[in-house]
Amino acid sequence: MIIVLKPEATETDAKEILNQIESVNLKPLYMPGTERIVLGALGDERVLHNLNIAAHPMVENVKPILSTYKQVSREMQSHDTQVNFGRNTIGGGTFTVIAGPCAVESKEQMFKSAEIVKKYGAVGIRGGAFKPRTSPYSFQGLEEEGLKILKETSAEYGLPCVTEIIDAGHVEMMESYVDAFQIGARNMQNFKLLKAVGQSQKPTILKRGMSATIEELLLAAEYIYNEGNKNVIICERGIRTYEKATRNTLDLNAVAYIKTKSHLPVIVDPSHGTGIRELVAPMAKAAVACGADGVIVEVHYNPQIALSDGQQSLDENHFAKLMSELNPFVQAAGKVLV
Amino acid sequence: MIIVLKPEATETDAKEILNQIESVNLKPLYMPGTERIVLGALGDERVLHNLNIAAHPMVENVKPILSTYKQVSREMQSHDTQVNFGRNTIGGGTFTVIAGPCAVESKEQMFKSAEIVKKYGAVGIRGGAFKPRTSPYSFQGLEEEGLKILKETSAEYGLPCVTEIIDAGHVEMMESYVDAFQIGARNMQNFKLLKAVGQSQKPTILKRGMSATIEELLLAAEYIYNEGNKNVIICERGIRTYEKATRNTLDLNAVAYIKTKSHLPVIVDPSHGTGIRELVAPMAKAAVACGADGVIVEVHYNPQIALSDGQQSLDENHFAKLMSELNPFVQAAGKVLV
Amino acid sequence: MIIVLKPEATETDAKEILNQIESVNLKPLYMPGTERIVLGALGDERVLHNLNIAAHPMVENVKPILSTYKQVSREMQSHDTQVNFGRNTIGGGTFTVIAGPCAVESKEQMFKSAEIVKKYGAVGIRGGAFKPRTSPYSFQGLEEEGLKILKETSAEYGLPCVTEIIDAGHVEMMESYVDAFQIGARNMQNFKLLKAVGQSQKPTILKRGMSATIEELLLAAEYIYNEGNKNVIICERGIRTYEKATRNTLDLNAVAYIKTKSHLPVIVDPSHGTGIRELVAPMAKAAVACGADGVIVEVHYNPQIALSDGQQSLDENHFAKLMSELNPFVQAAGKVLV
Amino acid sequence: MIIVLKPEATETDAKEILNQIESVNLKPLYMPGTERIVLGALGDERVLHNLNIAAHPMVENVKPILSTYKQVSREMQSHDTQVNFGRNTIGGGTFTVIAGPCAVESKEQMFKSAEIVKKYGAVGIRGGAFKPRTSPYSFQGLEEEGLKILKETSAEYGLPCVTEIIDAGHVEMMESYVDAFQIGARNMQNFKLLKAVGQSQKPTILKRGMSATIEELLLAAEYIYNEGNKNVIICERGIRTYEKATRNTLDLNAVAYIKTKSHLPVIVDPSHGTGIRELVAPMAKAAVACGADGVIVEVHYNPQIALSDGQQSLDENHFAKLMSELNPFVQAAGKVLV
Repeated sequence: MIIVLKPEATETDAKEILNQIESVNLKPLYMPGTERIVLGALGDERVLHNLNIAAHPMVENVKPILSTYKQVSREMQSHDTQVNFGRNTIGGGTFTVIAGPCAVESKEQMFKSAEIVKKYGAVGIRGGAFKPRTSPYSFQGLEEEGLKILKETSAEYGLPCVTEIIDAGHVEMMESYVDAFQIGARNMQNFKLLKAVGQSQKPTILKRGMSATIEELLLAAEYIYNEGNKNVIICERGIRTYEKATRNTLDLNAVAYIKTKSHLPVIVDPSHGTGIRELVAPMAKAAVACGADGVIVEVHYNPQIALSDGQQSLDENHFAKLMSELNPFVQAAGKVLV
Repeated sequence: MIIVLKPEATETDAKEILNQIESVNLKPLYMPGTERIVLGALGDERVLHNLNIAAHPMVENVKPILSTYKQVSREMQSHDTQVNFGRNTIGGGTFTVIAGPCAVESKEQMFKSAEIVKKYGAVGIRGGAFKPRTSPYSFQGLEEEGLKILKETSAEYGLPCVTEIIDAGHVEMMESYVDAFQIGARNMQNFKLLKAVGQSQKPTILKRGMSATIEELLLAAEYIYNEGNKNVIICERGIRTYEKATRNTLDLNAVAYIKTKSHLPVIVDPSHGTGIRELVAPMAKAAVACGADGVIVEVHYNPQIALSDGQQSLDENHFAKLMSELNPFVQAAGKVLV
Repeated sequence: MIIVLKPEATETDAKEILNQIESVNLKPLYMPGTERIVLGALGDERVLHNLNIAAHPMVENVKPILSTYKQVSREMQSHDTQVNFGRNTIGGGTFTVIAGPCAVESKEQMFKSAEIVKKYGAVGIRGGAFKPRTSPYSFQGLEEEGLKILKETSAEYGLPCVTEIIDAGHVEMMESYVDAFQIGARNMQNFKLLKAVGQSQKPTILKRGMSATIEELLLAAEYIYNEGNKNVIICERGIRTYEKATRNTLDLNAVAYIKTKSHLPVIVDPSHGTGIRELVAPMAKAAVACGADGVIVEVHYNPQIALSDGQQSLDENHFAKLMSELNPFVQAAGKVLV
Repeated sequence: MIIVLKPEATETDAKEILNQIESVNLKPLYMPGTERIVLGALGDERVLHNLNIAAHPMVENVKPILSTYKQVSREMQSHDTQVNFGRNTIGGGTFTVIAGPCAVESKEQMFKSAEIVKKYGAVGIRGGAFKPRTSPYSFQGLEEEGLKILKETSAEYGLPCVTEIIDAGHVEMMESYVDAFQIGARNMQNFKLLKAVGQSQKPTILKRGMSATIEELLLAAEYIYNEGNKNVIICERGIRTYEKATRNTLDLNAVAYIKTKSHLPVIVDPSHGTGIRELVAPMAKAAVACGADGVIVEVHYNPQIALSDGQQSLDENHFAKLMSELNPFVQAAGKVLV
């Protein structure tokens, strides 16, 4: 950590802070310059978190040197993590397609949608039972009834299933229904939920918050990892920017960047990332090309009657086209579509 | 709601959608233009939420006409809501200052800080017991022990207290300790929490999510209101933008704007909104000037040893100066500092 | 255009505005609702630009229905525009790689870099002679001397060249040196420059402003097009967002979206779009996959001694690797690398 | 400057970079840590701009310690700069109101508007003759004819005038017409224009680019200053964020922050900063409260017929109200309305 002092700071101020640094067994550095005194603290910066050096009245600013996440970083583990999802594996040479409706609406809807999902080669089914919705007047999901339908669908079509978990108190109840949890964008920093999921061993897809930095995203993964659950899959799903032509701005830079910094698998959600049906296929292909390990896309047997997100859901024709177009890109990437 | 069809849409497509609009008892409008067919649906647009017209393959886009929040809007209630907080009232002609440390750390720390808070005229005390922190390695709060200290401090100094609630399961437990709940920025769309707090009658300070739109903020308030809790106070605390010189970008436009659209009281958090001690006072004064009903600021008897957010906390001197400078602006605004 | 009136607006207000709409030969629509009066104006909305209906005191807001760009839109021309660049063509089935240093520094530097560019199959050379730099203390470019070197390099290696134009007064002087102009991000809304370039017939790469919306970008293209220059190539180069791990956020959504809305070719600049050498290749591949017609990348024979943007420049090894990895993706996209 | 090396960097890499640092007479620092080697360069960091150390293949990232602007900083000059504008002075204890229409449309319009501007106590008149407009189909300004009208208005009402300059070639022509230049948001990084204006001695209002950081804004001011023109006034006019309820997000944090970092006067444009007539007055008052030296607001004798920006223009009643409400806040700030 580099600590820049204010122009008016004295040597005494500097010493006071250097003593604090030494008190936590970091190596202190004193760098008096022509315009400012600069200090350094070398070692594991995490111990400085609780020292709050930035609060010192003579500190102008503080610049961390090392990333604050550790266990999920490539420096800790250089090889790619692979996470089991049903009989398949996410990460490490495969490209995984998970598909299904935004929300579980009925058994009929799930079965019909799963048939399409299966037919064109996806290996997992998605569907929300607890739906976080911006307006209290929107459909809020079928809750546990939805989980039952999801499980039944999963069994019928041999597709492992994933669904969103929105409350720390639901972990135990949901474990018996699903093959993987999803933490939604709005809950990426619901730390109580992260810890609860961390105490489970369920594979967990962690979606990036809509204005989360990459570092915050990896720290959220670190919360889960730190509790003992190493089956974490990162999901880029678009960030909020000034651009409103698309629902979100899909940040594929983040995929390529995270692959260099973390050993965790990374998948992409081009449905929420664009919000426009016609853009799902091009962005799924771009996800392959920039190094993602999979995609999760919204597919509904009849998007027009979907209770949520119909405008970004693919129907059978769109999904068939996506899967056939995707394959050459997966091959170009030297991966296998599983 | 205005529905713009794609250029290739036919009259038959239009009729199909017009029938949907009629089916929920809205007034349908057919507007064939030279380049596009445009449709309208007049009436309470909330019933359209679940129709998902945007999903129709011939719909290019959908533009809502009316705001989706209702109960918290000025159209529903034109006069200002006043919320009780201890013996005081927030909203409607007064200007309220709530102050205190970021986190409850110890009884000594709270008592010493409360003394300062009280001495210079603030009317409420704040302090976090459950701390949502970006890194799992940072101090996470004293939890229920912190609530006990907060309550004791509140009683000793006659200052009603507010603290953050982070889990729906905590409502009952926390009700006995505090005078008001705070929903933090990271939980603004934790809808389970919003509903749980809505079923309580505790005054609730709802902080804007760090990338929440004003409409989403008011819809989050509507979630609480809709469950029966009308004691909602909106809090602007800065939004996330590309500018990094300050911790957040305090959006005072939002304060002035919300005052025209909603009857709820609005307060400002210049501590998180700037992240820089020296900017707290100027932005607190600006909050008064643009129409806010109060501020909530971080004050610590010794910011250098604070366990969190010390760099934005005021010490006794800074807080004394803030309060004396604030008063002329409160008077200029025709309000009373309570 | 849809015009939503304020709740207090009367029928008389509505009539006044409807008359304005009729006065410019648009079709007026009157839609009295239960909560608001809504008006419509159907036809070519561009004539409403100068009416300024939003200024009416009883107007709450105004929602355009049609895009404001016309000549560059797919509705005006459904087939892809192809722009000549040297003996090659950008757009319509080919994938073009333009490469070279950020700035022209010397003849030696340009020749050595061009050799690499040529050797691995790029078909055009780039290099800035006029450099817009954030700080007045940074290297500002060789100006006309740089253009001479660029032209000499272009001739020696048979690579058509492109360089940035920063002033309307330079058009005539620069036309004799280069094969294509580039309008930089900072000048995307330098309308005087856009018009001047529009009066030339030089192919022009128009870079997206760092916070320009897609609509503003297409309107900037429309400025050039409207003056008679139809050889416009759109360039996505990353937008400014809150995320700082990468220099910019490359918005590949925009590429896929613009391809559906406009007939102009679209290329991508993954060097500025990421700012990190290691991310250039994955994002170039993603550009192919999402439908781009080419990329423009920074290549320097020795990035360590580059006078600008060295951290995102590729050396010979990196560039060789990029080109060999790119080809399978170009084939997967059904395009030809030229 | 702090230079963090990659984990794989060796001592030899470090020495190579330390030599570069010494070669420009900065003090090099070697800080080998447990996880990384960190280097420092102490002294005037501007000389490092052209060394491009970030391009070294073993450099992970580079963190500047000092701000890159110098001449406009408080460290160079601790007292407030005052800029003459007509017979008045902007900065240093006064609060200046400049008002007038967005665009000069006609002599009648300017005279009628100036009468209002004068009547309620503003001390300067504004009006655009060259209008940068997003669409080529919008009104582009009266150009030199507009300047003549502006000058005539200025003389008739004894109000010094300011107008936007959009091209470096216009400086000489415009100097005879106006009392101050304005550099618009879209041209904040039109460096050719900044330099040209810097060679004049005209007071210049420099508007913040719509996604410019504060540092970039001060560096743009430094461009002007560095050429010899010290009469620079910074103008905060709102930044582009994800929030669309208001036209821009007025960043008053930036005002308070710049006042601590720079000696230049800072004014605020609440008209563009909000885009909504009803928010102009509250945000003008907030500008006073956070330390601004003045405001520039759009006033039109009849906003309904304004050719641009009518929705944010004040009419006589609104402006009268603004001025009477503003005064108590100016007094609370210990300033004088001139």
